[in-house]
Amino acid sequence: MRDEQLYKQGLDTGSKIYGKDGYLGLVRRVERYDRDLADYLVENAFGQVLTRPGLDLKTRMLCNVAALSALGIETLLKSYIRGAFNVGASETEITEVLVQMHLYVGWPRCLNAFTVLEEVMEERRK
Amino acid sequence: MRDEQLYKQGLDTGSKIYGKDGYLGLVRRVERYDRDLADYLVENAFGQVLTRPGLDLKTRMLCNVAALSALGIETLLKSYIRGAFNVGASETEITEVLVQMHLYVGWPRCLNAFTVLEEVMEERRK
Amino acid sequence: MRDEQLYKQGLDTGSKIYGKDGYLGLVRRVERYDRDLADYLVENAFGQVLTRPGLDLKTRMLCNVAALSALGIETLLKSYIRGAFNVGASETEITEVLVQMHLYVGWPRCLNAFTVLEEVMEERRK
Amino acid sequence: MRDEQLYKQGLDTGSKIYGKDGYLGLVRRVERYDRDLADYLVENAFGQVLTRPGLDLKTRMLCNVAALSALGIETLLKSYIRGAFNVGASETEITEVLVQMHLYVGWPRCLNAFTVLEEVMEERRK
Amino acid sequence: MRDEQLYKQGLDTGSKIYGKDGYLGLVRRVERYDRDLADYLVENAFGQVLTRPGLDLKTRMLCNVAALSALGIETLLKSYIRGAFNVGASETEITEVLVQMHLYVGWPRCLNAFTVLEEVMEERRK
Amino acid sequence: MRDEQLYKQGLDTGSKIYGKDGYLGLVRRVERYDRDLADYLVENAFGQVLTRPGLDLKTRMLCNVAALSALGIETLLKSYIRGAFNVGASETEITEVLVQMHLYVGWPRCLNAFTVLEEVMEERRK
Repeated sequence: MRDEQLYKQGLDTGSKIYGKDGYLGLVRRVERYDRDLADYLVENAFGQVLTRPGLDLKTRMLCNVAALSALGIETLLKSYIRGAFNVGASETEITEVLVQMHLYVGWPRCLNAFTVLEEVMEERRK
Repeated sequence: MRDEQLYKQGLDTGSKIYGKDGYLGLVRRVERYDRDLADYLVENAFGQVLTRPGLDLKTRMLCNVAALSALGIETLLKSYIRGAFNVGASETEITEVLVQMHLYVGWPRCLNAFTVLEEVMEERRK
Repeated sequence: MRDEQLYKQGLDTGSKIYGKDGYLGLVRRVERYDRDLADYLVENAFGQVLTRPGLDLKTRMLCNVAALSALGIETLLKSYIRGAFNVGASETEITEVLVQMHLYVGWPRCLNAFTVLEEVMEERRK
Repeated sequence: MRDEQLYKQGLDTGSKIYGKDGYLGLVRRVERYDRDLADYLVENAFGQVLTRPGLDLKTRMLCNVAALSALGIETLLKSYIRGAFNVGASETEITEVLVQMHLYVGWPRCLNAFTVLEEVMEERRK
Repeated sequence: MRDEQLYKQGLDTGSKIYGKDGYLGLVRRVERYDRDLADYLVENAFGQVLTRPGLDLKTRMLCNVAALSALGIETLLKSYIRGAFNVGASETEITEVLVQMHLYVGWPRCLNAFTVLEEVMEERRK
Repeated sequence: MRDEQLYKQGLDTGSKIYGKDGYLGLVRRVERYDRDLADYLVENAFGQVLTRPGLDLKTRMLCNVAALSALGIETLLKSYIRGAFNVGASETEITEVLVQMHLYVGWPRCLNAFTVLEEVMEERRK
């Protein structure tokens, strides 16, 4: 049973991060896996958590970029680097996050994350 | 062979994050392990990387808190939560970083990180 | 804004896993960190996800024991081994899950998980 | 020096999980790496451990699916999702294991695991 | 059913690494968890794998120290640093392995591993 | 501001590991990400750390192969397996490192690493 207000907030926040089409594409994909799982993603993750006040969306995304590069989860890292740009982060800010990651998780994760950033930069130049 | 300018920059940046005594304590400890390793830490990590312009030290620390909680490296997380406070992060901002971590790395890492935050809050109340 | 029905389901499922006092203790602890975070834990994690039909709670707990031992998150592993017993798993079943883990994540994680199991067995004998 | 009884048990259990051709293909591949390594895999992993009584093969596979999705080892996850189906797990059961993983290891690992499940479902429909 | 030859080889190799008392202590502990698991450990891990020719035991231990520090599994790292000394590694060699780890897995895992090395050095001075 | 002596040492050591063209290719790629980051890589990682005396380059590479296979970072593992061969490791020695990894990090990481080794062997036969 969907909570319509949370769902709408989730769609709004998700669309700011991924773009409206990108976010609806993600939600449709998760609905194919499991309808309720998609609702948790929209309502709980985006509608409740990522819309919380107390930290701006740009800083949230930079922190997520840090965490995802640290874990080496490169598929989602790509979406979140795109998302960081969408909510106002500059290439310099994202670069700085990735540069300092080599101190905390080592060169391999750092360089792999830059490969992902370079792919996103390539998309953006088109 | 020490690069005195980088070394001094490293001591400055390290002292902003850990407090002067805290940072010198860390450096002394690493010197016991290996003298050159301590120099790399001061010159390269703190003197070169963490003093780079392009991202403010508070956002750097929030990103590091995100990465260290994601990896579950709780000893250093404690130092970095202290450091985030030292460079101007608020309890709310740190809380927000940790809250959203449950989305990306799951509840266990998130709750363990809050245990660490609570220990730091306890220290600060004294 | 709490969803009372989900909250109640979450308390019920959480109490089955952790025992009522254990679960309320966990919820109170998380409320100290952040009131809303505790609500997400009760409503979303326990009320929505862990109460889903389609897989019995015992198998759910055995899978969680597998995942937590694989990740080496030993604090929560202890709670979940206790939880697995509470929802009907036998010592043999938990042992079998941990034994086979050495194939998938290596001996160190496997032996550390057995140390945790032994601590829980010790508690239970008292 | 091969232990023929363990080797035969290993082939039997491996064939239940991977299908006979799939399992022999794996064993042949590992023999190319190192002949003895292939024997350890058949005798020790499959012949000794996975044939132990005390936990049915379906629950074993669900636990392995949980652990492999938690670790993000997607190549082997695919084999083990196939294997879970082969030893009697339903799509619903596997879905439930993956859904609850987002609580323990976060959304990225969960969604990546569903991508793998979807690929296996696609194979099975052919 | 124990393979006596492998078991004896395992005891020999394990005793070289851990010392005879240390190794028997480990085996007794694992027997408490599960009798057969202890046999796999002695026969398969120590009797088959770690006794293989083709790489000397000192290099094997240095590689294991690298892997265990990379993973942050500090309980076993301690045993293996002791073991590396027992099979002839020098403090310099172990230090070099840990120093270079900061490049591959970051400073936190490196410094935590040095804490473990320092504890072992302390034991050895007694 | 580049330290020319460290930079030259870094190029020398890097060229021993990756071959001159391979190493310059890596450095050029990292320069595209960030010019200073490339200097840290050459001066700090290769010029300072990997050129330290106290452990021969072959043993260093075998330890790195162990760590990278343990972490499942397969892109860099490939470079480092090539590098291990370049500094004198034999196929047998690398095989032994990877074989024993299944004990410490489980079969999945071990078998994935052998896939990488097999790709490198294929290149070398050409």
